[in-house]
Amino acid sequence: MKTQVGIIGAGPAGLMLAQTLRGYGIDCVILEQRSEEYVLSRIRAGVLEHPTVEFLHEMGAGERLAKEGMPHEGIDLLFRGEKRRIDFPSLTGGKKVTVYGQQEVVKDLILLKKEFDGQILFEAEDVAIHGAESDTPSLSFTHEGQTKTLACDFIAGCDGFHGAGRKSIPEQKLRLFEKVYPFAWLGVLAEAAPAQDELIYSRHEDGFALFSMRSPEVTRLYLQCDPDENLEEWPDSRVWDELHKRLEAKDGFRVNEGTIIRKDVTPMRSFVCETMRHGRLFLAGDAAHIVPPTGAKGLNLAAGDVKLLSEGLADFYKSGSTAKLDGYEALALKRIWAAQRFSWFMTSLLHKFPDGAAFDHEIQFADLDFYTGTETGRRNVAENYVGLPFGWSGGV
Amino acid sequence: MKTQVGIIGAGPAGLMLAQTLRGYGIDCVILEQRSEEYVLSRIRAGVLEHPTVEFLHEMGAGERLAKEGMPHEGIDLLFRGEKRRIDFPSLTGGKKVTVYGQQEVVKDLILLKKEFDGQILFEAEDVAIHGAESDTPSLSFTHEGQTKTLACDFIAGCDGFHGAGRKSIPEQKLRLFEKVYPFAWLGVLAEAAPAQDELIYSRHEDGFALFSMRSPEVTRLYLQCDPDENLEEWPDSRVWDELHKRLEAKDGFRVNEGTIIRKDVTPMRSFVCETMRHGRLFLAGDAAHIVPPTGAKGLNLAAGDVKLLSEGLADFYKSGSTAKLDGYEALALKRIWAAQRFSWFMTSLLHKFPDGAAFDHEIQFADLDFYTGTETGRRNVAENYVGLPFGWSGGV
Repeated sequence: MKTQVGIIGAGPAGLMLAQTLRGYGIDCVILEQRSEEYVLSRIRAGVLEHPTVEFLHEMGAGERLAKEGMPHEGIDLLFRGEKRRIDFPSLTGGKKVTVYGQQEVVKDLILLKKEFDGQILFEAEDVAIHGAESDTPSLSFTHEGQTKTLACDFIAGCDGFHGAGRKSIPEQKLRLFEKVYPFAWLGVLAEAAPAQDELIYSRHEDGFALFSMRSPEVTRLYLQCDPDENLEEWPDSRVWDELHKRLEAKDGFRVNEGTIIRKDVTPMRSFVCETMRHGRLFLAGDAAHIVPPTGAKGLNLAAGDVKLLSEGLADFYKSGSTAKLDGYEALALKRIWAAQRFSWFMTSLLHKFPDGAAFDHEIQFADLDFYTGTETGRRNVAENYVGLPFGWSGGV
Repeated sequence: MKTQVGIIGAGPAGLMLAQTLRGYGIDCVILEQRSEEYVLSRIRAGVLEHPTVEFLHEMGAGERLAKEGMPHEGIDLLFRGEKRRIDFPSLTGGKKVTVYGQQEVVKDLILLKKEFDGQILFEAEDVAIHGAESDTPSLSFTHEGQTKTLACDFIAGCDGFHGAGRKSIPEQKLRLFEKVYPFAWLGVLAEAAPAQDELIYSRHEDGFALFSMRSPEVTRLYLQCDPDENLEEWPDSRVWDELHKRLEAKDGFRVNEGTIIRKDVTPMRSFVCETMRHGRLFLAGDAAHIVPPTGAKGLNLAAGDVKLLSEGLADFYKSGSTAKLDGYEALALKRIWAAQRFSWFMTSLLHKFPDGAAFDHEIQFADLDFYTGTETGRRNVAENYVGLPFGWSGGV
């Protein structure tokens, strides 16, 4: 088998890359370890930044998104009983975010890929990268019981934190940055109409809580908990009691209860891998970086990577120049670190740190007062929440 | 002896209060433990916020300040060799700061107080507060070998962190918030012309450095050091080597060397005392709060307290109402916590934390990129640096 770009992983990064390359007339094959069914049912984040929505439209994957995505023009930050709204359009020159599940993006992109050339191999196991430093790299894998080889010009490691992509880069080339937070999120999916249209991020004395939604019929809720929290100790009644307490607001807001159809615990971690390149292997998305979910940046960071990487590949096939590919990592990392910064900031702002002294605790509330009580503070949150432009370079 | 307001402490807080009360026609006597000579030679911070400068003019203490103060329209943040300027007027609607030594403010105010009524008693020792909860409080003290009593309507504790003011409030009424930082500042006063007009805050790999000035002939410089740093280990040559290294910039900036006339070590601490009131005793300035010097907020916070406290006292003497005095603490604390937040932010942004992981280290540089590389980030720094308005209440 032979293609121009071999992509490992049919998550959002790999699928967006395939779709974008198609627009440039570049062939690619996606190898995905899991089954199609598994990939389609994998539930992750659901907030798309302004630049991500634009990018999905640009690549021709915006049809259903335009119909079913829920535009959000603001969020509430709730503390000491007061809900303070950050209004995105008035603070960012008209931008907003769109709530649309990651699994919906994946579904739209898989359908497009299958319709166009069908080049997604699901359940491709034991994927290994060969000759990344040569001009003729290849991928070996097992599919339908047979060992196969895919010869390519380039390889894109879009295979997530645990994938083969990053692990194929020699250790001495890697600089890894990691922070593990001393708390996690207990997530709940409930068959209940969302009690309001916009998200509420709450910094309660007892810890963080997030009110969110999946659809007009399904509410998604989170509670700060211990990283080793035992779900057995969270019967539904306790979940609702805690949610009502942490999301209580002076304006009378109250979460609607409903049947809980899912409970899970999400650990919180920040992670960045430098380098994102090894010869003709390039990393994009979770393979190179993980953010805690507080800033809703995960899928959006993948989109930013894909945009730059696809432009680099397009330039190479058009002009033979590797200049843009050579600049991919440095430029991508600027925006990645900016999003890491914002995710760390939102996480630090809104959670109760188990070892926090009284001073640190008060500083969080002074921070909340500043970021909600001044236009500059609100603008800071809004500009980062709707997303810095793709290719943002940190320049003045 | 008898007066309307008994003030403990002839530092900036006590002297500004005396001068402001004079404008309202309210009598006061200041008791100061130290000698006049000592008070006049006590060198502290030197950056006056925009509202502090306005306030000093308003109270009639701005004559020499207008002539000799050095208006500064920006600061440089230096990292990875790049100096990035924050321009105050364009980001704050025309505001700036003024570099004018705290001891100059003190000198101007002492001259005014002496000229008007002479009611400052220097070397007043063993000051004790009596009957703070009654309507007839008093101060006892020893002066020129005699024990004396000053009967007053109100007492203002402007006597700094170690003074009698805060210590006279029953412990069970106090909530104390404190953070001690794991570093200090090694300060140097040098007879050398400042090599540029504006301050430079540097986040160097080896630690923080600050380039500042006292006059056109005197440079004031600081280096991050250990809290228990031994000055013996810092001969002048080492000081200059370290300053040149930490303040090196791609634009060719270089500190001018000169005779070092003073070396000192300043510890770094954040401290807030709630409550600021006990009956008819009110705290203002360092008696109630300490900031690390990074945000240059110390004297300015005292000015904000004095403004509110003097308005409360004026209202009482004019109308008999205690409403403003009753609201003093809650309103003062809003701006105090905002300045604490900014001082903590600047300190966290610019120092090297000895226990910082690689991730935290990179987040500092991402923060620096954001706060210097976006207009919103620069506006955040500028608005806080020139000073939030007195009486800022954190409201939306």
